[in-house]
Amino acid sequence: MSYRLAFIGFGVVGQGFATLLRDKKEFLMAKFGLDYKVTAISDPVKGSVYQEEGFDLSKVLALVEESGNLDGYDKGVKGWDSLKTVNESNADVIVEVSPTNIENGEPGISHIRAALGKKKHVITTNKGPVALFYRELSELARKNNVAFMFEGTVLSGTPAINLALSTLAGADVQDIKGIMNGTTNYMLTKMAEGQSYDAVLAEAQKLGYAETKPDADVKGWDAQAKIVILANVVMGGDLKPNHVPTKGITEITLDDIAQAKKNGKKYRLIGHAWKESGVVRAEVSPALVGADDFLYHVSGVTNALTFATDALNKVTIVGPGAGKIETGFSLLTDFLSFHGAR
Amino acid sequence: MSYRLAFIGFGVVGQGFATLLRDKKEFLMAKFGLDYKVTAISDPVKGSVYQEEGFDLSKVLALVEESGNLDGYDKGVKGWDSLKTVNESNADVIVEVSPTNIENGEPGISHIRAALGKKKHVITTNKGPVALFYRELSELARKNNVAFMFEGTVLSGTPAINLALSTLAGADVQDIKGIMNGTTNYMLTKMAEGQSYDAVLAEAQKLGYAETKPDADVKGWDAQAKIVILANVVMGGDLKPNHVPTKGITEITLDDIAQAKKNGKKYRLIGHAWKESGVVRAEVSPALVGADDFLYHVSGVTNALTFATDALNKVTIVGPGAGKIETGFSLLTDFLSFHGAR
Repeated sequence: MSYRLAFIGFGVVGQGFATLLRDKKEFLMAKFGLDYKVTAISDPVKGSVYQEEGFDLSKVLALVEESGNLDGYDKGVKGWDSLKTVNESNADVIVEVSPTNIENGEPGISHIRAALGKKKHVITTNKGPVALFYRELSELARKNNVAFMFEGTVLSGTPAINLALSTLAGADVQDIKGIMNGTTNYMLTKMAEGQSYDAVLAEAQKLGYAETKPDADVKGWDAQAKIVILANVVMGGDLKPNHVPTKGITEITLDDIAQAKKNGKKYRLIGHAWKESGVVRAEVSPALVGADDFLYHVSGVTNALTFATDALNKVTIVGPGAGKIETGFSLLTDFLSFHGAR
Repeated sequence: MSYRLAFIGFGVVGQGFATLLRDKKEFLMAKFGLDYKVTAISDPVKGSVYQEEGFDLSKVLALVEESGNLDGYDKGVKGWDSLKTVNESNADVIVEVSPTNIENGEPGISHIRAALGKKKHVITTNKGPVALFYRELSELARKNNVAFMFEGTVLSGTPAINLALSTLAGADVQDIKGIMNGTTNYMLTKMAEGQSYDAVLAEAQKLGYAETKPDADVKGWDAQAKIVILANVVMGGDLKPNHVPTKGITEITLDDIAQAKKNGKKYRLIGHAWKESGVVRAEVSPALVGADDFLYHVSGVTNALTFATDALNKVTIVGPGAGKIETGFSLLTDFLSFHGAR
């Protein structure tokens, strides 16, 4: 089977996925009979190229690395905006990796609606549209008989959504709990070593873990979007982000952490979804965990999720929650999954 | 899609799966359109019944619970042996849950060869045939265009094989390491609390974790079979169990454990597979792990596996490694997987 891919957005995650597509081409063909070419990239900053025969990915990646944009690409049609690229390119798979917006999901939601309406598969790492419009979008995908997959919206490439939907398919997931934001876990880990909030935030920003405007991480909004996605997709909930009581780590002081340590505890920012009289509820909040809790031992930017199920008791997955190649890998997992590989 | 299942063996695991099939019938139909009936059970101790219209599973389970056998079942044909049941029943899915034999794989290997040859799907928790004959059996399944699946041979129902083959499909797994025997991990956990080897073995036997003849667990043979399966299935190895240097926990003394504790370490029985100049190798051995290693925190009968991959760094799955319903659940995962559910 051969696919044509269009990238909507070409930031870190898009480039990570493009790198995997370049480096694993022979492996994916030999192992899964998966063939593909990338025929369009549209990014508001880096520019836009459509080349219906498919790009030389090495050239594209080198160009973006060197010049920061696609202007120097010597073939194809330039200047199509994202919606024109979705609607008029020959791509049958839309890789939606535009910036996340958890207020209204734009511009991702418009890209995804257009793509599914045109019977194009969508794979995305964009949390906003999934957290806000999962039911509408999954129904639209079903009606148009195409895939809508988003493993990378939670825990980057660490299997979380596909783990629950495929390998735990026969189980009733009753509770999901875990560390789903790497930046704050890194900060809490470093604060437990005695560094101040401001110092670790500055360090996290320097390392590229935290944004210049760190609110989405430190106020818990990123974790909020992720627990909403898990609650709705895995547990059948119907939550909106603003339904979810959310508290970040901004009020935790070094004194709090020292006190916790004295009691053998650590702070972790926990996303939690559970069923209460058949209704799915969720919250995000810092919690004190003891050494008997697995999450106590999950440090730095690592993420972890525990699924409590009827048939299997607790299953925990631990792995990277961020990274260029790691998050790009989630798109490869989705791509392989609807291709039917295993 | 409607399937007819035959159980070859009806011990703890078979009964666990039958319980799930009974309790989840409506859920599985509603969610995945999965329909089925069980038309045959053949067990050397509990007897054999074939009823082509399908059993009342509640009746079968109650009967086995009360009387220990199937003799009192009031319908169907009695007395078919396992091979006749595989070959002549109307089942299109063979649930192979006869006792594990890691010397020569019998009688499971004969059941599986016969079933695949008859173009019947096979789902199994039987380690012997998979550890010894994976290449032959997977090729036979491929040729006959049927499924051959065995999630429960490793880590019971905790996703391990399906995790690697589906959610990590696009990755190159370069190293697998973990705790894959619950009995010995329970014993090491209790010994670290100061109890003697003999006392904890007796306790493990009382709790049903260890067999009367505990060699397969304490000498590492169970972990050996599991790491061979992982190495061959996930990493493309071609190992036989007797290729794998294997050491159990029988030589670990309370003194050793006390000394380790002084150094901040714990003993864990580790199965490990890795690539060395392109060749897959494996070993089973007790190892000292420190608190910075995740496996240090995995206690009791819980199992854990860490996959090191090219694209995703390390991913660890932690969950139950035994149990009636938990292991039965692995068969449901396999069943749903070839049914194409997600």
